[in-house]
Amino acid sequence: MRRRFSVRDLGRFAAGALGAAGAPTEVAETVAESLVFADMRGISSHGLVRLPIYTERLLRSMVSADAEPELKQCSAAAWLMDGRNNFGAYTGVRAMTAAIEAARKTGIALVGVSRSNHFGTAAYFARLALKENQIAIVTSNASQTMPPTGGRRPFVGTNPLCIACPVAEGAPFMLDMATSVVARGKVIFAAQNGQPIPEGWAVDAQGLPTRDALAALDGAVLPLGGPKGFGLAMALDLLSGALTGAGAGPTVRNMYEDWSEPQNVGHLFITIDIGQLQPIEDFKARMAEYLTALKASPRAPGCDELLYAGELEARRQEESAQSGVALPGGLLDELDTLAGRLGIDPFLPVDRPLQNSG
Amino acid sequence: MRRRFSVRDLGRFAAGALGAAGAPTEVAETVAESLVFADMRGISSHGLVRLPIYTERLLRSMVSADAEPELKQCSAAAWLMDGRNNFGAYTGVRAMTAAIEAARKTGIALVGVSRSNHFGTAAYFARLALKENQIAIVTSNASQTMPPTGGRRPFVGTNPLCIACPVAEGAPFMLDMATSVVARGKVIFAAQNGQPIPEGWAVDAQGLPTRDALAALDGAVLPLGGPKGFGLAMALDLLSGALTGAGAGPTVRNMYEDWSEPQNVGHLFITIDIGQLQPIEDFKARMAEYLTALKASPRAPGCDELLYAGELEARRQEESAQSGVALPGGLLDELDTLAGRLGIDPFLPVDRPLQNSG
Repeated sequence: MRRRFSVRDLGRFAAGALGAAGAPTEVAETVAESLVFADMRGISSHGLVRLPIYTERLLRSMVSADAEPELKQCSAAAWLMDGRNNFGAYTGVRAMTAAIEAARKTGIALVGVSRSNHFGTAAYFARLALKENQIAIVTSNASQTMPPTGGRRPFVGTNPLCIACPVAEGAPFMLDMATSVVARGKVIFAAQNGQPIPEGWAVDAQGLPTRDALAALDGAVLPLGGPKGFGLAMALDLLSGALTGAGAGPTVRNMYEDWSEPQNVGHLFITIDIGQLQPIEDFKARMAEYLTALKASPRAPGCDELLYAGELEARRQEESAQSGVALPGGLLDELDTLAGRLGIDPFLPVDRPLQNSG
Repeated sequence: MRRRFSVRDLGRFAAGALGAAGAPTEVAETVAESLVFADMRGISSHGLVRLPIYTERLLRSMVSADAEPELKQCSAAAWLMDGRNNFGAYTGVRAMTAAIEAARKTGIALVGVSRSNHFGTAAYFARLALKENQIAIVTSNASQTMPPTGGRRPFVGTNPLCIACPVAEGAPFMLDMATSVVARGKVIFAAQNGQPIPEGWAVDAQGLPTRDALAALDGAVLPLGGPKGFGLAMALDLLSGALTGAGAGPTVRNMYEDWSEPQNVGHLFITIDIGQLQPIEDFKARMAEYLTALKASPRAPGCDELLYAGELEARRQEESAQSGVALPGGLLDELDTLAGRLGIDPFLPVDRPLQNSG
């Protein structure tokens, strides 16, 4: 049985590590929360597995954790934010908060972010809009990991798209998907754990299909569904990058490999204040009816339950809050190495009982 | 060699057929233009192949071609349109035009449409925004054709997503994709032509994989990339339907099979006025740099050219304008049958020389 760790302990450790590397408390806590949020939801590819690289980039001055992002109003409903090279989780929360505020006035609003960094899981920001009965559309670009259709070398990132809708009760609808067949983090995870990857996930450096996770990291993960997935990833690159003034395609720096310059990642946050289009109760009734019909839809043999996007993650999140968070194997050692490097207390020095904490 | 037909002749015939079935001139011409536009771009699944069903629905009072859509402002940047059951191409042009106008004031704007019908190819509307240097995000729902992941029966439509960005020169970026592995229209087309479909496109009525196009029409086409594609289709359903007050999932009526009620299709149009975020020249320079880098990216063996979304379609469109439009086999007979039913001149009664006309 895998050990589980309390949400509070994980958050404290992560914030402590980021703080020791130089991040102000609020920034450290926000970034830590975003990573723990991902682990709680079972998205370990975007969880504490990223803490070592985040910390390393901060230590090597590739991230400016003490720079406050600058927000500029462009028109009644459109804003741009200069992330000033702070962490993506921090600029993202700032940007999403501004977008929510703006949509309250105009019904729909947009905040585009430039000069940011890897922002983790987009759902972390989208959930802020859900609390305010807004729909969120969140995207980001990322450094080059996927080839164009017919290409041999990476050109676009596995740029994520998140679309989230509030519900009356139960798990909100929360699509949060990479535009690759799988998230690159899952290939990193397989490589770290010495596991092969399924066919169709990636090509090697020569553009040939591979099941070797390390070879895939040298090569490229493939876009979802061929030309459509590449087109979607490119569209999100243009929205996150070309529109905001951030990097796009070749000009987004690789978080793991480029130590010469900041990443210049771009994000885009679109919020829709549902209540301005129709009574929010009507919308939620409509959602409930839709989800009820979906859950009652006939199942294929072998399928016990039809799930919608975000449902499984919400269950895991609740379970993690109740019973602690399961971490991927191998990560504990990495976190202890990190603690040693930073001169902070190692992760869970004694085998403490779990604390149930949110 | 397949025969090619002039754009003008096709448009006249289609508008004539719709007019004979009762559509006012402006509505008939708009719908005709949208169908010819699709055929010009090689998207024959959304071209004149739809004329017989459009006409039939009009004749059987399932479409209200003389009802003017009603636009209601909900907030500074958000609008709703009651399509009043007019054709999707017509409500779509009205809605997109309103969205473009609104985004000029607020930077980003949204127009949601309810009580509409099948709107053809989303690119037809997006191109209107491109002319005004705006980014367009267009989606629609459709009647149930794809099962949820693990499901046996269709629950969502192959709801399309279109994202379009203007460029300084050359083909605009124009992603216009169904959320199925392929557009259902391509299965219809295969069925009409007695062709098998590739593996992985669809399941039959029992939920089993099939290569028989007719069996696939009885069953369901599959979402792009499994759960991600289903999640995306569902997100677009919620944006087009739940948000606008249109049908969604089970409450969008099938255009081909349901003759008891109008379709109640929903659409969503989001426009972003780029010039309010940055000088449009800067954006276009950024786009040009991006596309140049993409085209110069290393190619896999066997690939002659890397293409981006909309590029091939733009070339075909130009070729069609120059040399005429190629129609899918079998369609000519259908169009002549339609002419007979409507009591109008048959399609191309004499073998006229091509007219080069836009």
